[in-house]
Amino acid sequence: MIKGKILIVGLGPGPEKWLTPEASAALAIATDVIGYIPYVERLPTREGQTKHATDNRVEIDRARHALNLAQQGHIVAVVSGGDPGVFAMAAAVFEALDAGSEADKATDIEVLPGISAMQAAAARLGAPLGHDFCAISLSDNLKPWDVIIKRLTAAAEGDFVIALYNPASKTRPQPIHDAFALLRTMKKPSTPVAFARAVGRFDERIVLTTLGEADPATADMSTLVLIGSSETRFIERDGQNPWLYTPRHYGVQP
Amino acid sequence: MIKGKILIVGLGPGPEKWLTPEASAALAIATDVIGYIPYVERLPTREGQTKHATDNRVEIDRARHALNLAQQGHIVAVVSGGDPGVFAMAAAVFEALDAGSEADKATDIEVLPGISAMQAAAARLGAPLGHDFCAISLSDNLKPWDVIIKRLTAAAEGDFVIALYNPASKTRPQPIHDAFALLRTMKKPSTPVAFARAVGRFDERIVLTTLGEADPATADMSTLVLIGSSETRFIERDGQNPWLYTPRHYGVQP
Repeated sequence: MIKGKILIVGLGPGPEKWLTPEASAALAIATDVIGYIPYVERLPTREGQTKHATDNRVEIDRARHALNLAQQGHIVAVVSGGDPGVFAMAAAVFEALDAGSEADKATDIEVLPGISAMQAAAARLGAPLGHDFCAISLSDNLKPWDVIIKRLTAAAEGDFVIALYNPASKTRPQPIHDAFALLRTMKKPSTPVAFARAVGRFDERIVLTTLGEADPATADMSTLVLIGSSETRFIERDGQNPWLYTPRHYGVQP
Repeated sequence: MIKGKILIVGLGPGPEKWLTPEASAALAIATDVIGYIPYVERLPTREGQTKHATDNRVEIDRARHALNLAQQGHIVAVVSGGDPGVFAMAAAVFEALDAGSEADKATDIEVLPGISAMQAAAARLGAPLGHDFCAISLSDNLKPWDVIIKRLTAAAEGDFVIALYNPASKTRPQPIHDAFALLRTMKKPSTPVAFARAVGRFDERIVLTTLGEADPATADMSTLVLIGSSETRFIERDGQNPWLYTPRHYGVQP
């Protein structure tokens, strides 16, 4: 029997320029591509390759499907936007594996990293992640909201730069409002904030503001929200958005 | 006068398969490449391109040099391993810009993201960064040690997965020992720990252990240390290292 395999592929934020050669090669050899509809649909159609596009929130079914196909000898690319290891499909595949059979655990699996949304956002803005930072998902689909509160509190107490994933969706508009309300009790109003939407795609939109001035409703499902540490600052420029960066030093100007 | 430019280029963890097409293109058009010796030396020599390899710890001089060359019309690639926005050269360039002249601030600059060490490590290990995480540099060259203590404490209180950059060096062997001593007072001994050294390079070495069992001296300058949250777990496999992952859910098994 042919030995199948699962390749968990990071597509990056969207543009080809950010797709690694490793990910390109995986997409070229896969017999099956599995993923959330918009990611699968934007990939070119290839002869002999079957696309399985599924809706959001069915990650475990998708992972189970990939395991089954791999065990039948298929080369399955499970695709995620960004990095599959960061709030994406890799954890779902390993959850399915963990709950699965010995055959599942023996499946050949490889994770192919990609550029995550916070990196594309940071690159566009300057260097806001230049110092210690946290990445927090505001989705409470799979974790209790009090865990999110605990982590936002810890992130503010630690004075980390904070990258917020999944800040809001149509059915879940509230988290980003609640997160900002909390952070406003803990951090200065002058703290820089960036809403970086769909960076690298045609509908990219950047909003630079401060914690005091920010309208949390600026964030949608495609937005990565960055909130500075006490050291994060803007550099004003003529005729362009200011740069946003976090120095490598802290408190002590070298 | 020809308009110069600075491209702050992420080389990723090492292998070509993780170098983005955007970064490859930048290296091909640059008139000058500036960076830390090992990164610059491993790049191919190109006709008409000048390499400026400098020692570690001179990031600001390097950034200043890049600004000067760009203002003379050069296309300058400032290279970093990993992602230049994550504990690397991007913040140094913006620090130099911030302290610089109006001409500096008008310099055309672009940041090109790359795969960072924690992503390569996570991909190799499974999906340890599958849930909320922090990235902390243990270098106290530019920040007071008490800030590092504050952040490690907050990261443990928030039950984040923790990625430690710069855990140790020959002249600075102590931080990783002190960090583990602190984390051992706050997190369970059974917490999974990974030492992921030089992932993707010929001298890659992975050590999987627990917080209770770990020998902090396993970490060197090329090691990314990952410490799990309370949810991070191993999946045992026959004849291979176990997988390491953090589920997307927290506390509540769906």
